[in-house]
Amino acid sequence: MDAPPDTPAAFGPTPRTKVKRYPDRGAYDREVVYSILDAGLICHVGYVIEGQPFVTPTAYWREGDLLYWHGSAASRMLRTVGEGVPVCVTVTHVDGIVLARSWFDNSMNYRSVMAFGRAEPVQDAEEKRRVLAAFTDRVAPGRTAETRPPTEQELKATFVMRMRLAEVSAKVRTGPPRDEEADYALPCWAGVVPIRLVLDEPQADPLLPPGVPVSSAVRAIRLGTP
Amino acid sequence: MDAPPDTPAAFGPTPRTKVKRYPDRGAYDREVVYSILDAGLICHVGYVIEGQPFVTPTAYWREGDLLYWHGSAASRMLRTVGEGVPVCVTVTHVDGIVLARSWFDNSMNYRSVMAFGRAEPVQDAEEKRRVLAAFTDRVAPGRTAETRPPTEQELKATFVMRMRLAEVSAKVRTGPPRDEEADYALPCWAGVVPIRLVLDEPQADPLLPPGVPVSSAVRAIRLGTP
Repeated sequence: MDAPPDTPAAFGPTPRTKVKRYPDRGAYDREVVYSILDAGLICHVGYVIEGQPFVTPTAYWREGDLLYWHGSAASRMLRTVGEGVPVCVTVTHVDGIVLARSWFDNSMNYRSVMAFGRAEPVQDAEEKRRVLAAFTDRVAPGRTAETRPPTEQELKATFVMRMRLAEVSAKVRTGPPRDEEADYALPCWAGVVPIRLVLDEPQADPLLPPGVPVSSAVRAIRLGTP
Repeated sequence: MDAPPDTPAAFGPTPRTKVKRYPDRGAYDREVVYSILDAGLICHVGYVIEGQPFVTPTAYWREGDLLYWHGSAASRMLRTVGEGVPVCVTVTHVDGIVLARSWFDNSMNYRSVMAFGRAEPVQDAEEKRRVLAAFTDRVAPGRTAETRPPTEQELKATFVMRMRLAEVSAKVRTGPPRDEEADYALPCWAGVVPIRLVLDEPQADPLLPPGVPVSSAVRAIRLGTP
């Protein structure tokens, strides 16, 4: 889902989001940020309890400039984050191992997004149901129509967090190694070993009656580079 | 690398590391924690600056009960973490999308490790060189012998962090969906779509002279489930 037409094309960098190391790898364009977020399934949510940082992996999804994630009402992460404390949400895709001619210039190709903000719980039951449907269909397009929607009790037991994307940056490294000038004369191989997420053949639940075919929603699941 | 022979088989759970949601998914065995850490390339390091959490992705490696990560001396993450502030390091592998018969019971298969502690910079140049070699060869076995070691200046420009694994837990979900009893009668397909990281064919640096073959270290790179 794109941002409304009057949305600026880029997030303004702030002191926290301005990429200082390798500033040429930094990006603030909505298009770049959106594409990295939309290519991922899990984010890492950072929050603080009594001075101690916690980093919890969780599934997320995006609608325009809103980032959502969910979980059990019993989750420490969601109980804490739901209080409106500052959070940092990071999404990272590793795209390759960069093999330079020196140990020092070895690197990784990656795409990452870091978003700062405060999240709030989605309270309204209908809104909660709507965004959970969007999440389900985002992962497996059409899956909501194939499966049972949540009961009222299940909706109550599900916490959905919403955070506005405002203070956001992306960082991207692509391409071959950048070696020191003199090292290009070394005789060793140098380049990139690409890394990719793949989906394997669906594995049926052993409790599924024989003859139930893999559904179209499950066949429609896509991952990785959008 | 395994722990010394007198190391207990498990990390004792603490109030912070005890897995509360789905306690059956929690694991504290060194063997489980080690295998999850050793299957990964990047971790997410959480730290706090003036109450604000930051979550930074970075490459890491393990030796026994020591976790290492590195980066530029100019990195905000390393400058902060090097001061000995509390950190949380999380490593996550997504292994599958779990498609249940209800929206509510959809899930993910994953393996994750969360480690709390304080990191310290490796100061000694020789020790730094040794662990950087171990890291390089961990990613691409034998690569240190094929490429140029760091100069003194490069060593100085590299920060290496070390954190003892002490307060650590793993969380693992495997297997098919766990649906509500009544939902098993629904006619929809249910099961798991496995997700896997793969390496593609090495891509030579365009600046590599023609005829240099992919080296044995690069061919030896392995990923994912050990």
